[in-house]
Amino acid sequence: MYRYEEKNYDPLSQLKNESIFMVGNGYVGVRGAFEEGYPSGDSIRGSYINGLYDRVEMIHAEKAVGLPKEYDKQPKIADTQTCIVYLDGEPAQLVNTKYKNYNRYIDYDNGETVRSYEFITRSNKKAYLKFRRLASFVYYNVVAYKIEVIYDGEIALLSVIDGDVTTYADPNDPRISSEQKQLLKVKDLGENADISYLLMNTSNTNLSQATIVKHIVLSENEYAIENSIKETKIETMITSNFHLTLDKVCVFTDSLRYADPLRSANDILEHLSYENYETLLEIQKNYLRDFWHNSGIKIYGNENDQKSIRFMQYQLLQNVGIDPYSNVSAKGLSGEGYEGHYFWDTEIYIFPVLVANQPQRAKSLLEYRYNILDSARNRALELGHRKGAAYPWRTISGIECSGYFPASTAQYHINADIAYAFYIYYLYSEDTVFMVEKGLEVIFETARIWLQIGNFSGDVFHIHEVTGPDEYTAIVSDNYYTNMMAKFNLEKAYELYNYFSEIENETISEKFRVLIEKINLSEEEINLMKNASDNILLLYDNNLGVYSQDSTFLEKPLWDLGSDKRPLLLYYHPLTIYRYQILKQADVVLAHLLLEEYAELEKMENSYKYYENITTHDSSLSYCIYGIMASRYGFLEKAYNYFIQSVSLDIHDTHQNTKDGLHLANIGGTVLSVIQGFAGLRLSENTLILRPSVPQQWQGYNFKINYKDCIIEIDVTNQININLLEGNEITIKIYGQEYLISNGNNINIPLQRGMCHD
Amino acid sequence: MYRYEEKNYDPLSQLKNESIFMVGNGYVGVRGAFEEGYPSGDSIRGSYINGLYDRVEMIHAEKAVGLPKEYDKQPKIADTQTCIVYLDGEPAQLVNTKYKNYNRYIDYDNGETVRSYEFITRSNKKAYLKFRRLASFVYYNVVAYKIEVIYDGEIALLSVIDGDVTTYADPNDPRISSEQKQLLKVKDLGENADISYLLMNTSNTNLSQATIVKHIVLSENEYAIENSIKETKIETMITSNFHLTLDKVCVFTDSLRYADPLRSANDILEHLSYENYETLLEIQKNYLRDFWHNSGIKIYGNENDQKSIRFMQYQLLQNVGIDPYSNVSAKGLSGEGYEGHYFWDTEIYIFPVLVANQPQRAKSLLEYRYNILDSARNRALELGHRKGAAYPWRTISGIECSGYFPASTAQYHINADIAYAFYIYYLYSEDTVFMVEKGLEVIFETARIWLQIGNFSGDVFHIHEVTGPDEYTAIVSDNYYTNMMAKFNLEKAYELYNYFSEIENETISEKFRVLIEKINLSEEEINLMKNASDNILLLYDNNLGVYSQDSTFLEKPLWDLGSDKRPLLLYYHPLTIYRYQILKQADVVLAHLLLEEYAELEKMENSYKYYENITTHDSSLSYCIYGIMASRYGFLEKAYNYFIQSVSLDIHDTHQNTKDGLHLANIGGTVLSVIQGFAGLRLSENTLILRPSVPQQWQGYNFKINYKDCIIEIDVTNQININLLEGNEITIKIYGQEYLISNGNNINIPLQRGMCHD
Repeated sequence: MYRYEEKNYDPLSQLKNESIFMVGNGYVGVRGAFEEGYPSGDSIRGSYINGLYDRVEMIHAEKAVGLPKEYDKQPKIADTQTCIVYLDGEPAQLVNTKYKNYNRYIDYDNGETVRSYEFITRSNKKAYLKFRRLASFVYYNVVAYKIEVIYDGEIALLSVIDGDVTTYADPNDPRISSEQKQLLKVKDLGENADISYLLMNTSNTNLSQATIVKHIVLSENEYAIENSIKETKIETMITSNFHLTLDKVCVFTDSLRYADPLRSANDILEHLSYENYETLLEIQKNYLRDFWHNSGIKIYGNENDQKSIRFMQYQLLQNVGIDPYSNVSAKGLSGEGYEGHYFWDTEIYIFPVLVANQPQRAKSLLEYRYNILDSARNRALELGHRKGAAYPWRTISGIECSGYFPASTAQYHINADIAYAFYIYYLYSEDTVFMVEKGLEVIFETARIWLQIGNFSGDVFHIHEVTGPDEYTAIVSDNYYTNMMAKFNLEKAYELYNYFSEIENETISEKFRVLIEKINLSEEEINLMKNASDNILLLYDNNLGVYSQDSTFLEKPLWDLGSDKRPLLLYYHPLTIYRYQILKQADVVLAHLLLEEYAELEKMENSYKYYENITTHDSSLSYCIYGIMASRYGFLEKAYNYFIQSVSLDIHDTHQNTKDGLHLANIGGTVLSVIQGFAGLRLSENTLILRPSVPQQWQGYNFKINYKDCIIEIDVTNQININLLEGNEITIKIYGQEYLISNGNNINIPLQRGMCHD
Repeated sequence: MYRYEEKNYDPLSQLKNESIFMVGNGYVGVRGAFEEGYPSGDSIRGSYINGLYDRVEMIHAEKAVGLPKEYDKQPKIADTQTCIVYLDGEPAQLVNTKYKNYNRYIDYDNGETVRSYEFITRSNKKAYLKFRRLASFVYYNVVAYKIEVIYDGEIALLSVIDGDVTTYADPNDPRISSEQKQLLKVKDLGENADISYLLMNTSNTNLSQATIVKHIVLSENEYAIENSIKETKIETMITSNFHLTLDKVCVFTDSLRYADPLRSANDILEHLSYENYETLLEIQKNYLRDFWHNSGIKIYGNENDQKSIRFMQYQLLQNVGIDPYSNVSAKGLSGEGYEGHYFWDTEIYIFPVLVANQPQRAKSLLEYRYNILDSARNRALELGHRKGAAYPWRTISGIECSGYFPASTAQYHINADIAYAFYIYYLYSEDTVFMVEKGLEVIFETARIWLQIGNFSGDVFHIHEVTGPDEYTAIVSDNYYTNMMAKFNLEKAYELYNYFSEIENETISEKFRVLIEKINLSEEEINLMKNASDNILLLYDNNLGVYSQDSTFLEKPLWDLGSDKRPLLLYYHPLTIYRYQILKQADVVLAHLLLEEYAELEKMENSYKYYENITTHDSSLSYCIYGIMASRYGFLEKAYNYFIQSVSLDIHDTHQNTKDGLHLANIGGTVLSVIQGFAGLRLSENTLILRPSVPQQWQGYNFKINYKDCIIEIDVTNQININLLEGNEITIKIYGQEYLISNGNNINIPLQRGMCHD
């Protein structure tokens, strides 16, 4: 039984812990604000629905063609958290010296957060308070609260559904919006005995969101319940004595997914009419039993790290979108940083976790990208391209929502990142139907852009005016990561075109023909893609023996302005940062994680050492990549340290902005640190590749992979055991040697220590 | 007698002609709006004071360190233009078919604009109307109007001083503000018989501006005069019969220059108490007689071009700042484009005209730059530099006012452009006192920045992350123009340091010592400057045989998106534009105009041909440079065509935005097309250089140059005559041969045709 536990209440960690103790299920998320309110300190008292957005005007200091005039913004939805507790009329709150035995935890097995304490009233009487909440993993629309109070006196609970919700703002931090906005406004509200409802509307997008709350009172004693409707909220007052338990079952819907959200919310509530908190919890438990069994990573010999990995996997479960209307916000559903936008974080940091073990969830993320393909096509035209699709750097609904194009729109690599995810999904699933229906279209349309933003100069194909993952350098020529990913995108477009051109399945063949006609793709263009891919420049510096991040990067000076001011972006003008060899996050090193086949091992390792020295990790997307690649080169102590850095990022708030939400990419990356890092999982065309290593702080680890039709269990201690749990046979390359694993022919080979050359 | 004349009234050219027919004197400018108003069409009814500014919040779509949070904006001052004419109660306006014999002209000799027409009333009676106005070149605070009406009936003039003034906006054009602003607001107003006054205050900078108007009525008949005060304006109604003449003498002051602007305006008006329009015109005429005699460029054998050059010189006279509080706005005092900001246009396009012939005015422009040196020092710190000065790309008061740093703050070359102007002034004037008091400080402080934004990689000094003059490419490494200008800035800092270190004049020596101590400049730093200057990279491409605009420029593709959409900046996303070999304006070619000694002639000529082909001239700063450099290489037909393009820019509104104001840099550049272009004037350390040529459309030209203690007259026809008008002796290199010209030893040599190699 694993928990994340908080044993003391600390007002200074209040905001951070609202993120950590969020409950969510990929559809709805509720931050961990206190039901009874705080005596002091800030709160971002937010609940969010994945994919729901309003549009807000974007003002530019200087106009230019193709800059977004408006952007998507995730609204706060109605707040259902509040339940003020009165004890003989005195509000119970965590004022110093008035409480004891405070405790809060996330229960990864039950799928709830539980908080309890003893409160001492003015008249020195003791009350026992317990607050529980869950977001159902089975009924996505449901969040439930349970409030239990034991007190020898009058207990009154004031439960509130509040429609007066405003987004959070910080005028100084560029990662946070500058202005508070009331995006959803109350359109209708009402109550009927134990049911209250609130219908809200966005200001500009005309989307609506419904919230229905059912109050279920459990009391051995008599109780009174009374609703009162205010302008933007409904208050329910319940009074009783000695022992009062209130279940609040909340149903959330929205008009992206439901034609009539209020009606659908009603239907859902009706369907759940026999459920209360305890029964929902039972369903939750069952769900999680399966989840941990199928997907849980085990760490042997290190309880702390085992708990941390649970935390990470649990937060992914809570925050990753579950339908094609949504994706994964940079902060999931746990906060308002980056305004709820989806980035490449999904494809590079989160998707790889899911695709290896939860293919349906992975596929759903791709479906979302397919759904916004038309938006990406429009964006390509806006940018002056003649065809193809240019995926937005940040978005909810599909439009480009970036305010500063040199570190957003110029990051064309997102096109290849998305294509990469589709291709990896294909390697895992062999799902030719999905590919011909959706995947190929995305891969072809993204690949087309490279032919338009790249060009041959002599025999060499260059890409100019792009920004790589490292945002501390912008608008450069031949960014290594971009060129490598473009090479991949172009090459796979070419290969898939030829493969599907000759595929023998008639239905698929016909669908492919229709697709090619629809997007008007010629063999000439496809051959040009191959040519560009073959001749794209991947810069290598002979003197330093490292791959160069871009055409001028290695000519720049090393940072000499001190190391006390971090993150640099909060202290230095962008031009100052751009002028140095200083990285926010992995760039060349990340390219080598994704596409090692395009580079040479020794040069990759040299490059790793070079870039590691000049990387600030000011981005939360950095530690995990450096950690994974440290494993790749056998630097196990380093790999483990990076793993701990990744683990600490939110748990110890090392970037000091967990208040704005969990860092979902880092969370995905932490899980990848085991799978791709220590276990060294990679894919080639027809083979799983493993290069297992075990840090000395562990005795080993265990996880399962769904690959093609098989499920395999990988267990690494001093031995590497591979068990085929489902399916017929599978080829795995371990330390460079291929093994055929079939039913009853499990693999058991010794762990190699030291650098994992194939 | 030369005039610029408009023979028909065209409502569609109304806005453009308000710019063309502005009256100004470098301190105050009044657009040429009609006194009696328009029957239809847009108007930007503006008057402006040079250097006056308010501050406006700058909103960025995404925050970053060092982006301006507010910017300077030139306000409209009180409008004094309005004088509605009633004829038997009917307002006279230029409605179709109701007027005859319309005529308007700028009189370059009298220094006024005159407009007249005959108006036919409803009852078919004819009135004769004449409107004259001038901005005094002698009394800078004064603008005067004269309105004369002859009509057989009742004539009423409603003269207005209007304080309800709002700036112009265009939501689409990036060169124009997006939002109308009322920056100056009325604080006090009043009248006393023939005098009316208005005191206005800026909203944020707490600057004030006073306007006093004196009405002088000349009528053979009786007349009545009556003032009435409204909330934000004062109206004066004058009625008479048959023949009514009204002089409006307006005095403008501001609190930048006057402690009590209203009192000072009163004093000035008192001082002028005997002046009316005619006497002011007489003073104006005398001033212009001297001006044209001393500074007028003569073109032989082409009346049109002679007129055009007059237009250009006259507009410079009207729009160039006359005191150290002000400079030259991109649009002078003729409109609101670029919000009244000063750019490098001053130093590179306008200053060279003045320094050769009106040294005091040139010096005043430098004094302004010295006055904002502390602002530039602050800006350097904001940008993360440890010392030195970083001049703002655009400003009024000295703060950086740019909204988009890749095409502004990144244009570090403005530092060298300003240093260049100081140095050129020194070459012309040998003014060591000014240099030790102001010039050296600017040259040293600007040079310091190059050592901080540049770095050695091996033996080569690079400058990264800058933008050159060509804004269709941004944030590059080793921009040719920037590196060349930086080389100059560094070299001159070194040379001047050594020269002044050993200067024998004790006063100057002491001042120099104090300066070096004040700015804490070490010999080590100075030697580093020399080293950087000697080793800075000036890129040359061996294959193409041209100097490369930056480190990746020549690898990019040529523009292939058609030529129908111009200017590109209004049709394409910046990244699209940046990705091509396409220029907005001269970059490498401009470097060769300013610093030919750093390059080789043949390579320069090749480069010219190469870049000319790929330049859009979407910037108004481009034609003149290509024209001047066409002369340099002997392409006279081309040079003449560019001259005509420059001439046409405002006169024929070829960029379709003369409505926003005259293009002052182009105007300066047109004058330079004669002096630096056809005459080939350059400076070396101790010599004037000439390479005269005459386009076949002309018979020759004549102008005067003040050089060191001398004034010389240069007369070019088939002969080149150099007359020393003042001073002792002077060395001039003509076609590569040095001539010593002393009193009574004038030069007379034949014109060479063809390419002017030295």
